[in-house]
Amino acid sequence: MENIQTPSATDKNQVFIKMVISNWQVQNSRFNALLDKLSDEQLAEETSPGRNTGVYLLGHMAAVHDAMLPLLGFGDQLYPELEEVFIKNPDKSDLPKPATSALREYWKNVSQTLDKHINETEAEEWFSRHNSVSEEDFAKEPHRNKLNIIINRTNHLSTHMGQMIYLSK
Amino acid sequence: MENIQTPSATDKNQVFIKMVISNWQVQNSRFNALLDKLSDEQLAEETSPGRNTGVYLLGHMAAVHDAMLPLLGFGDQLYPELEEVFIKNPDKSDLPKPATSALREYWKNVSQTLDKHINETEAEEWFSRHNSVSEEDFAKEPHRNKLNIIINRTNHLSTHMGQMIYLSK
Repeated sequence: MENIQTPSATDKNQVFIKMVISNWQVQNSRFNALLDKLSDEQLAEETSPGRNTGVYLLGHMAAVHDAMLPLLGFGDQLYPELEEVFIKNPDKSDLPKPATSALREYWKNVSQTLDKHINETEAEEWFSRHNSVSEEDFAKEPHRNKLNIIINRTNHLSTHMGQMIYLSK
Repeated sequence: MENIQTPSATDKNQVFIKMVISNWQVQNSRFNALLDKLSDEQLAEETSPGRNTGVYLLGHMAAVHDAMLPLLGFGDQLYPELEEVFIKNPDKSDLPKPATSALREYWKNVSQTLDKHINETEAEEWFSRHNSVSEEDFAKEPHRNKLNIIINRTNHLSTHMGQMIYLSK
């Protein structure tokens, strides 16, 4: 059992990447299951009086995860226009929002594109710097790598999922 | 830069333990800052109509994090009696709840005890199995280690923090 109780450092890298990615996948699966359960009418409601609607949170999640594509070196955003409405401005702005059916589609496309790239990413690559940290800062703070973005965004998704759950009966 | 861009496997172990622990610490700091901001009166309110109160969520977090002590081999629970009220039963049960001032104290003590043990845990130890997985299963699923519990509980904390934020003005 010794080699299993204390796997080699290289084995641990594989194990650790699996830990982070599987937690990311579990939270995304839960979010998608919740989304399937919620009608467009339910998504239009506020998650709590005066708080964000499900529509805004769905758009916010699509925008934030879309922005992970360039951040992780996976390519350009699919829907850069979402940033203005769902990140830079609050729910109660006067900015027109896309139809809920469109937002569901955007979320699905962003998730599938991210998953494709995540599955293709080599172990070594996860420990390289993400594109919002300079080479100089990364030299001092090597934990600011691509895998750390996945941990951070999994927590962000969990936070808003806790709010969207309030829309389900 | 080569050795920084692609640190050795052993360096990486240190880096990703830091990644997980620092994300845990950031979310705990945010939760404590929110808790300091909320009055006992605000905590007594429902986070959304018909949903959990702040008091229940505070007790739930204290109970779940207290249960991490034996799970991670850090010792016995400090307040095992919380489990019945805040994990096994819902907010709307008829079970009497401790005073909010007591729950704040329990949460603080649990957090400090956990932090002390987390800071004393050696790198190698984080990759050993936690106490709810058998040696046999761990041999097959080495990602079910102590560090994975920290990732999982950080997401759990994030989920309920997203709900407790609704109590702040």
